[in-house]
Amino acid sequence: MKGGGEQRRVIIVGGGFGGLSAASALSKEPVDIELIDRRNHHLFQPLLYQVASAVLAPADISMPIRGVLRSQKNVRVRLGEVAGVDLAAREVVLGDGQRRPYDWLILAAGATHSYFGQDHWAAVAPGLKTLDDALEIRRRVFMAYERAEWCRDAGERRRLLSFVVVGGGPTGVELAGSLAEIARRTLVEDFRNIDPTEACVMLLEGGDTILRGYPEGLRLKALDQLAALGVEVRFGARVVDVDAGGVLLQDDGDGTRVRASTVIWAAGVAASPLGAGLGTDRDRAGRVQVSADLSLPDHPDVFVIGDMAHIAGADGEPLPGVAQVAIQGGAHVGRCIQADLSDDARDSFRYKDLGSMATIGRSKAVAWIGRVRLAGFAAWWIWLVVHLMALVGFRNRVVVLMEWAWSYMTWQRGSRLIRATQDTPDDEVRPG
Amino acid sequence: MKGGGEQRRVIIVGGGFGGLSAASALSKEPVDIELIDRRNHHLFQPLLYQVASAVLAPADISMPIRGVLRSQKNVRVRLGEVAGVDLAAREVVLGDGQRRPYDWLILAAGATHSYFGQDHWAAVAPGLKTLDDALEIRRRVFMAYERAEWCRDAGERRRLLSFVVVGGGPTGVELAGSLAEIARRTLVEDFRNIDPTEACVMLLEGGDTILRGYPEGLRLKALDQLAALGVEVRFGARVVDVDAGGVLLQDDGDGTRVRASTVIWAAGVAASPLGAGLGTDRDRAGRVQVSADLSLPDHPDVFVIGDMAHIAGADGEPLPGVAQVAIQGGAHVGRCIQADLSDDARDSFRYKDLGSMATIGRSKAVAWIGRVRLAGFAAWWIWLVVHLMALVGFRNRVVVLMEWAWSYMTWQRGSRLIRATQDTPDDEVRPG
Repeated sequence: MKGGGEQRRVIIVGGGFGGLSAASALSKEPVDIELIDRRNHHLFQPLLYQVASAVLAPADISMPIRGVLRSQKNVRVRLGEVAGVDLAAREVVLGDGQRRPYDWLILAAGATHSYFGQDHWAAVAPGLKTLDDALEIRRRVFMAYERAEWCRDAGERRRLLSFVVVGGGPTGVELAGSLAEIARRTLVEDFRNIDPTEACVMLLEGGDTILRGYPEGLRLKALDQLAALGVEVRFGARVVDVDAGGVLLQDDGDGTRVRASTVIWAAGVAASPLGAGLGTDRDRAGRVQVSADLSLPDHPDVFVIGDMAHIAGADGEPLPGVAQVAIQGGAHVGRCIQADLSDDARDSFRYKDLGSMATIGRSKAVAWIGRVRLAGFAAWWIWLVVHLMALVGFRNRVVVLMEWAWSYMTWQRGSRLIRATQDTPDDEVRPG
Repeated sequence: MKGGGEQRRVIIVGGGFGGLSAASALSKEPVDIELIDRRNHHLFQPLLYQVASAVLAPADISMPIRGVLRSQKNVRVRLGEVAGVDLAAREVVLGDGQRRPYDWLILAAGATHSYFGQDHWAAVAPGLKTLDDALEIRRRVFMAYERAEWCRDAGERRRLLSFVVVGGGPTGVELAGSLAEIARRTLVEDFRNIDPTEACVMLLEGGDTILRGYPEGLRLKALDQLAALGVEVRFGARVVDVDAGGVLLQDDGDGTRVRASTVIWAAGVAASPLGAGLGTDRDRAGRVQVSADLSLPDHPDVFVIGDMAHIAGADGEPLPGVAQVAIQGGAHVGRCIQADLSDDARDSFRYKDLGSMATIGRSKAVAWIGRVRLAGFAAWWIWLVVHLMALVGFRNRVVVLMEWAWSYMTWQRGSRLIRATQDTPDDEVRPG
């Protein structure tokens, strides 16, 4: 399949922020790059919650990886599943048993959500990592209102109109804010038997703060903004069970039961299982401990970047699983391979923190850029511009801008369709 | 559940063109309307092939039925499956056994595709009636190229890059044209091992013409346009079997085998099975024979409209299954109910043919409006304006216009994502 066969081979696993950044950093190098992903598209994860809340369509935040890399002729894209890595043979093993040799390997396979060993909760409390997750959450949320509209039992109606988000990180905060806006604004005129504004949106956080890692002032501002939207935030809420009826919380007695039709899991993250087969140290979230240059301690030809890697930050804490860490890691690894090609020494990875931000609702956000701390409209506006500019692809930027403008003006959501064909309101499991 | 309980009840089954038109015609009448659909959204079917060919996203041609009817306060929308009609009791029976009484019933449940009794072909040759169908076709088409890129067997590669559309009606013609443009334009730079322009797109028609019912001049023009795109059209191609390897055609000998990875079924239509339970005459496509006012012969309180109804046109042929027939039928039925309410006599239904048009590719279309017959750019332009204006919802119009403009300028397609999570190139059935 190779043209000349002389060039050295780089395999990149994953077409997310890290993988694409690494490929781009190597665009001018005399290497044969093979980028393997199990999906054909790059996903702009920071806006995934807007697909779950029906503002955006899947295609608005996705872009075919082939399209992104169209003009980079030293890359071949392969749609496929990676089963493991044979470090000794320097080969990547694909799901169908094929083996692909590499001179350098860049693992950027990301993370999924973690239920802390309670994987059966996944069926009742979907997380938000993929487009399919987002569409499933969207379906559940809008289906709950459809069911409530024709439900004659007041208690069951209340359960149907109760939405719980577990986990007070940025994803949890953004989802809870969106769910509240759907109830208070989007659906307000659409039903005849129920009043959507009576829906209850609850954000459960096991610790004592939302947006951990943000400055305290901004955390309080975010709480105010959630309260203004009518989101009920509970701290110290440790989930001990989830089922179709709702959530069971730990307390001093028999536990507190929160009845809800829709539970969304935004509480835990686990690195791609690909890291487990490398035989190196991993942290509790399954992230691979890497050397200062992001390579494996005993395998300088193998790099791990992005959400898969445990990279200690300046304060000793691991760097967060955000796009910037993956993008900068990809660029760094590209420079390492350039150094190898010219027999130079590699540099250590240095993360440059460009800031953090989370949006809570229309004109509601918090942002934190160096010493600048913003909340409210200004933060929301910066969030908007930054995310729009970061989106891959001109078309996506224009479409997303338009969808946002339309949502801003009308409070409507452009992708409010319930898609699963067979699912009528009455053929799903109901709690006993 | 009802407010006053005195008003007479209209039940509409189906939120397509017919159902929405009927609801709208009754907006000022003192009736309680219940519109039941198994999906929460109205689908703009004429553009469904553009979802299958990745130009548009599902949400671009869908609109929540609740949103459409938001301001019409005499309508309640119910998401649910209708199992049947109890004509004697004047009740609609839902999938969960609930019964909903009516004074007038409007059946507008549409049609699905028909495999002429060979329903097992559905798995290998999807049709195009729902969003799920469209996404499945999109997945198959783009997955075929992904597989071909890494396939080492020349014969198998040729099969992967062979696409067959069965049926030369408007849908078949539009799909075949789109598939050819994907091969010749959209993907031309995206692969390294294969040349997408070598893909083969074939349109199989059992009869001796495409676009039956169109004037002959336009049919020939459409053939020219398909030929210009590189679509191979075969007439008299009667399909006797379809499997994962391709299509078997009837001929004088053992049959001709057309090898193809992707077969799309655009050959037959069957009315909703709801018509079968009414005990009235139906035609071969399962359409219900209706009286001159579109009601059932023995049940003037039950109307059947749109693709479910067999309505004889001026030339004795049944009216085609197009949006205009459904829209005008819905409006007519609304007027019949108004007449009933004021004890006037009902009129007979008169269909006003506003024209037919089909698009074949960029700047390629045929249109036929009264005596005006157009082909090429002018027809395409009219097609574009008419469809844009007919779309329900301002947002959808703007988004679709933008997607079209972008596709026009770049030949790219905004929704080129392969979505099924588990489907890697090698885990599907391959022909032996």
